[in-house]
Amino acid sequence: MEREEALNLVKVQLTDHRYQHTLGVMETAIALAKRFGGNEQQAELAAIFHDYAKFRPKEEMKEIIVSHGFPQDLLEFNSELWHAPAGAYLVKKEAGISDPEVLDAIRYHTSGRPGMTLLDKIIYLADYIEPGRHFPGVEEVREMAKENLDKALIKAIQNTIVFLLKKNQTVYPDTFYTYNEIIKKLED
Amino acid sequence: MEREEALNLVKVQLTDHRYQHTLGVMETAIALAKRFGGNEQQAELAAIFHDYAKFRPKEEMKEIIVSHGFPQDLLEFNSELWHAPAGAYLVKKEAGISDPEVLDAIRYHTSGRPGMTLLDKIIYLADYIEPGRHFPGVEEVREMAKENLDKALIKAIQNTIVFLLKKNQTVYPDTFYTYNEIIKKLED
Repeated sequence: MEREEALNLVKVQLTDHRYQHTLGVMETAIALAKRFGGNEQQAELAAIFHDYAKFRPKEEMKEIIVSHGFPQDLLEFNSELWHAPAGAYLVKKEAGISDPEVLDAIRYHTSGRPGMTLLDKIIYLADYIEPGRHFPGVEEVREMAKENLDKALIKAIQNTIVFLLKKNQTVYPDTFYTYNEIIKKLED
Repeated sequence: MEREEALNLVKVQLTDHRYQHTLGVMETAIALAKRFGGNEQQAELAAIFHDYAKFRPKEEMKEIIVSHGFPQDLLEFNSELWHAPAGAYLVKKEAGISDPEVLDAIRYHTSGRPGMTLLDKIIYLADYIEPGRHFPGVEEVREMAKENLDKALIKAIQNTIVFLLKKNQTVYPDTFYTYNEIIKKLED
């Protein structure tokens, strides 16, 4: 799918603010793919569609998780997690995206997962550091992302977990498993 | 077992510093048991023996975990975790402690576990806040422990996870499962 067509499909699903965020993620994901040897076309497509389901009603996202083979424990955790798997499902169904690697990168862009692919990592990180993001710690991760994808990713995940802990929010197990896995890899 | 006998068995296993810590945990655990309706005798005994294996050689602790039915994934995580299950095993074998609740409180005093018992919580928290402990955040947890056991416990676990994250160390899965479980309980 061409960029223009993909952007047109996504734009109607999002607020202006979230569409601008999506454009930032797209540019950042392409740059990361170039830098770290990822596939730029997949990075572009996954980035454009990563928040496709962001503004769907919670009930619709819940129904998708219940009915289409997603882990049911997602429903016990923060509903902020739901738009990622629901998005992977809807992007396939409504936009005809069939590349499983692109769909996985959308599916895991909020939680991470053990065994994250290069594309998963690019989308997770692009979502975190795109130029429209402004929060404590983001600049440090941007700097790290110029050199080392895994080190930048682990810092982003650490920041995210600390943020959730300080708000007394639960942390989805896959996020911790992703953290532990990458820390062990960096130790080696 | 009487307090004096238990203390004599433990004293020879520990450095002076760690023995003083143990006395602090004992006094704190008894106070917490009184405050929150726990069994004072069990709290005293579990506290006295909680660090029994702290100075055993790593190889011995590893061998116990390998050979006596403990989760093997412990060996992939920080060896600081090992003295707790190894202690539960050795305290039974060498000191003749047979109360399974006391042994469990020793076993889980470093990692926590989902479904922590009142005794587990008392020992975990007493170990964290005993008067000899001096680190950022401990005073806040001491204050919370005067009012609400679960709130104090969750703050201690949060602090511990943040400490590990900031040191780029892995977090044992039972610890974050414990965190998620108690957060959910406090939300209800």
